[in-house]
Amino acid sequence: MKAYVYVSLKKSVLDPQGKTIHGALTKIGFKGLHDVRQGKYFEITLNGGITKDEAQSEVERIAREVLTNPVIEEYRFSLEDQ
Amino acid sequence: MKAYVYVSLKKSVLDPQGKTIHGALTKIGFKGLHDVRQGKYFEITLNGGITKDEAQSEVERIAREVLTNPVIEEYRFSLEDQ
Repeated sequence: MKAYVYVSLKKSVLDPQGKTIHGALTKIGFKGLHDVRQGKYFEITLNGGITKDEAQSEVERIAREVLTNPVIEEYRFSLEDQ
Repeated sequence: MKAYVYVSLKKSVLDPQGKTIHGALTKIGFKGLHDVRQGKYFEITLNGGITKDEAQSEVERIAREVLTNPVIEEYRFSLEDQ
């Protein structure tokens, strides 16, 4: 089973990296962009023999306790059977 | 309209950052992980008044030409109406 975890800065937190990418894209000719924000993305492959519910809670814990800084970041994740 | 671009290392490319996260997670007690890979994730908000087809080709170009290093990385993206 595979889990995809997406960690991004909270909406209320400034994202200078995203702003820089936005500025660069506009400068080289990509018009029509309103905003760019950058985040992190983790692809976790779980061992077989784990149920979907177990995977759900395990990945939730990993995302919440390890991959995300709760002060400035938020996460979402999805599971995919293989 | 929003575009989500996911950039990850090609399967054939070693991912030391992912390996480190995998090692750390195992060490602090998360068993049952087979592999962890890390990538980047971009959330692009497009200005209104752009058609889905235009957005598709614009975002495809941004992902291919700017956000991805084609030698070692691959990308996928999705669009979302708002």
